[in-house]
Order: sequence, then structure tokens, then C-alpha cells
Amino acid sequence: MGSAAASPPPSGELLSQDDLKRVAAHRAVEFVEPGMTLGLGTGSTAAHALDRLGDLLRAGALPGVAGVPTSLKTELHAARAGIPLLPLDAASGARIRLSIDGADEVDPDLNLVKGRGGSLLREKMIEGAGERFVVIVDESKLVPRLGCTGAIPVEVVPFGAPHTLGLIRKVFDGLPGFNARLRKVKKDAGEVPFVTDNGNYIVEMFFEDGIRGDLRDISDSLLRITGVVEHGMFLGMATTVVVANRDGTVTVLHKKK
Amino acid sequence: MGSAAASPPPSGELLSQDDLKRVAAHRAVEFVEPGMTLGLGTGSTAAHALDRLGDLLRAGALPGVAGVPTSLKTELHAARAGIPLLPLDAASGARIRLSIDGADEVDPDLNLVKGRGGSLLREKMIEGAGERFVVIVDESKLVPRLGCTGAIPVEVVPFGAPHTLGLIRKVFDGLPGFNARLRKVKKDAGEVPFVTDNGNYIVEMFFEDGIRGDLRDISDSLLRITGVVEHGMFLGMATTVVVANRDGTVTVLHKKK
Repeated sequence: MGSAAASPPPSGELLSQDDLKRVAAHRAVEFVEPGMTLGLGTGSTAAHALDRLGDLLRAGALPGVAGVPTSLKTELHAARAGIPLLPLDAASGARIRLSIDGADEVDPDLNLVKGRGGSLLREKMIEGAGERFVVIVDESKLVPRLGCTGAIPVEVVPFGAPHTLGLIRKVFDGLPGFNARLRKVKKDAGEVPFVTDNGNYIVEMFFEDGIRGDLRDISDSLLRITGVVEHGMFLGMATTVVVANRDGTVTVLHKKK
Repeated sequence: MGSAAASPPPSGELLSQDDLKRVAAHRAVEFVEPGMTLGLGTGSTAAHALDRLGDLLRAGALPGVAGVPTSLKTELHAARAGIPLLPLDAASGARIRLSIDGADEVDPDLNLVKGRGGSLLREKMIEGAGERFVVIVDESKLVPRLGCTGAIPVEVVPFGAPHTLGLIRKVFDGLPGFNARLRKVKKDAGEVPFVTDNGNYIVEMFFEDGIRGDLRDISDSLLRITGVVEHGMFLGMATTVVVANRDGTVTVLHKKK
């Protein structure tokens, strides 16, 4: 990680986790400059950034700012907040300058796990298209290794999904504590596969003590599997991570050059 | 390529291209043994193999053979031909022993281009799952380099497809004669994107004189693009290629060990 800076707590009161998310989101929005096209993330932390952006736009502080939403939910929220929206394709002409989004985990190299909410492909596409990617998390999301606190999701095509699951298991063959399963949701009396925005399924990979090894090699091994569309490891993508600490301070981590 | 064997022409008559396909398909079916679970390819050449398999099954020559179809079209054709069918998932327990399919191009290392008909992902999944993969082509499909005679297809998710197309172009940035476009089909007065079996789009890559360089590196570069699902280069997958020559002879090429 690069330089870290701490700001003083915004107040002496005890802050809830949602307060922490808001504090970090507001700090992240300080990176936005007039005229920028932004990638707009999805989730409870990113939602605070949308609200803040809306406030600043209404106050006239960020003229010319527009956003590319990473989900339908974000599109609706951003529209309500008064943020002008562009589709990804128009923006690829306009250049996404900066994206802001939350993450499920952040490792010491600022690699991320995203997509535990079931959405990762559009985020990866939009946040990968931008020049800078500012991630907002509370302190609990900092981990020594990805996969320490929960699943690493993999998006797979529905056709042959159990076969693809088998091939994913093979990548980690014999690794103690490794497990993978197709993500299911309850429906009526039974369970059905969870379906992503893109009509695909999700395989959840679990590691006993986080994923070890060369993450780019592991990424390639997963992407080479026919049937794997994308995975939730965002490697080398985050340029800045804004961390809300339990005591209300904010730490800003920068990617090593 | 490994050893090559030539068989005498089946007759002195002039053979049509469809005759050649049939000759090669029948030769390929000779690799099938009783009890095998087969991957069943799609297209006009593979169709001849299905008919031949059906004939041999009805004659009692191949007891216990079952097939995993690579498309709905093949499923219907195989059912009519009387071939017992399995889904991919059941078969992954049963182990696909051998797949038979056509190809758009075959290079000297037996790498293939497939999917110009718009279907590649299910083929790649099923043919990659088997122990052996026998490819049937006529002589015109043998090329010095993949992409010499037409497009190399890439399956992409619909969301952000023009953006993904831009990233695919970047992989071959500045390469003279390279071109890529979203495959379209006519609809009403206009054009709409072609949609695959999996609900995705196809990007067609064109190379002036075929694709050069390390194909596995190029494959990885394509698969690393968020939005790319799979591509039509089948690298190192074919174990045997049965070639019908213009003069009616058949050449059998084997993968180098």
C-alpha cells in the first residue's frame, strides 16, 4: 500500500456501521471533479456516495458530472438523486474518469472481492474502464487474504453449470478446506439457482483461511474454464481505498505505483 | 502433426463436397466403440456422423453408446436417428469418451476455428470434457494459420458489447488488416445483433492473413476481457482430424504427443 492519511473523527459520538459507510463515501466523493464521467457502484456504501453526489450537484458544486450505473438499482437511485446518466457505450467515448464503489474484501495489495450480493460483471466492466477506481469500505473489510470472510463468487453460464462447478473444483483440487457450490435461492418449497443480471449463475468458492498463491495465475485458470464468464476477484483495479475506521477516522490507501 | 494414413477412394466417381463430408464422417465413426458416451457435434458434417451412428446402433453394432448433444438441433437430429441422449451433467459422471464434430479451420498443430455458424460455447464445453475429440473436415478447411479463410468468433455478454468490442480491438491494436465487428442479422427493415444459444452476442475478428503469435497468449488476453465469455479458437483440443480429400481419399491426422 502507498501513503495513508488519517482525518479526525467527525464527531465525538459513537458511530454506527452505516455512519461509517457514509463518512467514507463522503470522503471518496471529494475525489470527484467538475466535468468527470463517473462509474457508479452498487450496494449500501455506494448508495451514500450517490446521495452525496446528488447533494453536490444540486448545490452547483459539480457541474458537468455524469454517471454510468453498474446496476438497474443504481440507475434508479442515481436518477432520483438527480445525477445525469450515460450508458457504458456512450461513456466509452466520453471516458470514465473515476468509479466509486464498495467491496466485500480488500487485501494489502488493494485487490478486492466483490459480488457477494450477486452482481460483479457490470461493475468489473465499468470500473475496469475508468482511469481511477475509488473503493469505499469500513475497517471490517480489510483482510490479510481474499476469501477470508466469505465466498469468492464466479459467474458461470447456466448450460452445464454443474460440469463447470466440477472444473472450478479441479483448480483447487486437494486444497484443504476448499469448497464450492452453486448459489441457490429459495423458491416456493424448494431452491433454484440464483440468476445474475446477465442471466447467468453464480458458483461460490470458499477457502478455509483465504485464497493463497498467485492470484493472477488463479484468475487465468478460472477464466480458461469454458463456462466461466467472470469472477469476483478485482485484481490491481482499485487505485484508492477509503477506509472508515471504527473510531470515526478515515484512512486513505493508495495503490503502489 | 503425427502419423497420417491414406485410404483408397471409395469409388471412381467424382464426389461432391457433401459426399466428402460423409466419407470423412463415416471414417470418424470407426473410432466409436460399444459402451462409449459421445459428444455429438453440430453442423452439416457432424450430421453425417449422427446418421451413421444411428445406422450402426440400429444394426446392433454399437451397444451401450449414448450421446451428449452440443445443440438443440443436434439433440433433435440424434433423437430422430435413435441415439440415446444424456445431458452434460449426467455424462460428466459417465465420462465423455469421444466427441465428433466438424470445424471451420484446422491449422498444422490441429488447432481449430469453430463457431462461424454462431455456436461455440457448448461445443467447447462438451468437446473439452471428453478424452478424445475427432474432428471431421474436407481438405478446404486445412489452413496454415487460423483466421485465414474467415472470421474467428468471440462470444460476449450483451451488456456493454460495443465497449467489449473496443477492448477486443485493443488486443490487436495497430495490426495491419485486423478488423472486428459485432455480428448482426437482418430483422424487419434493419439489423439486430445475432444472439447465441446462451443469450450472448458474437464479435467477429478478421485477420488479413490469419492470426499470428502465441495462440495461448492471445486466448488468455481475450478471456481476461470482462465481457468476453469464450472464443472460437479450440487450442490443443482435437486429438484426431479426419480429412476428406478432393480425390475421395481420407487422411487421418493425429495430435503430437
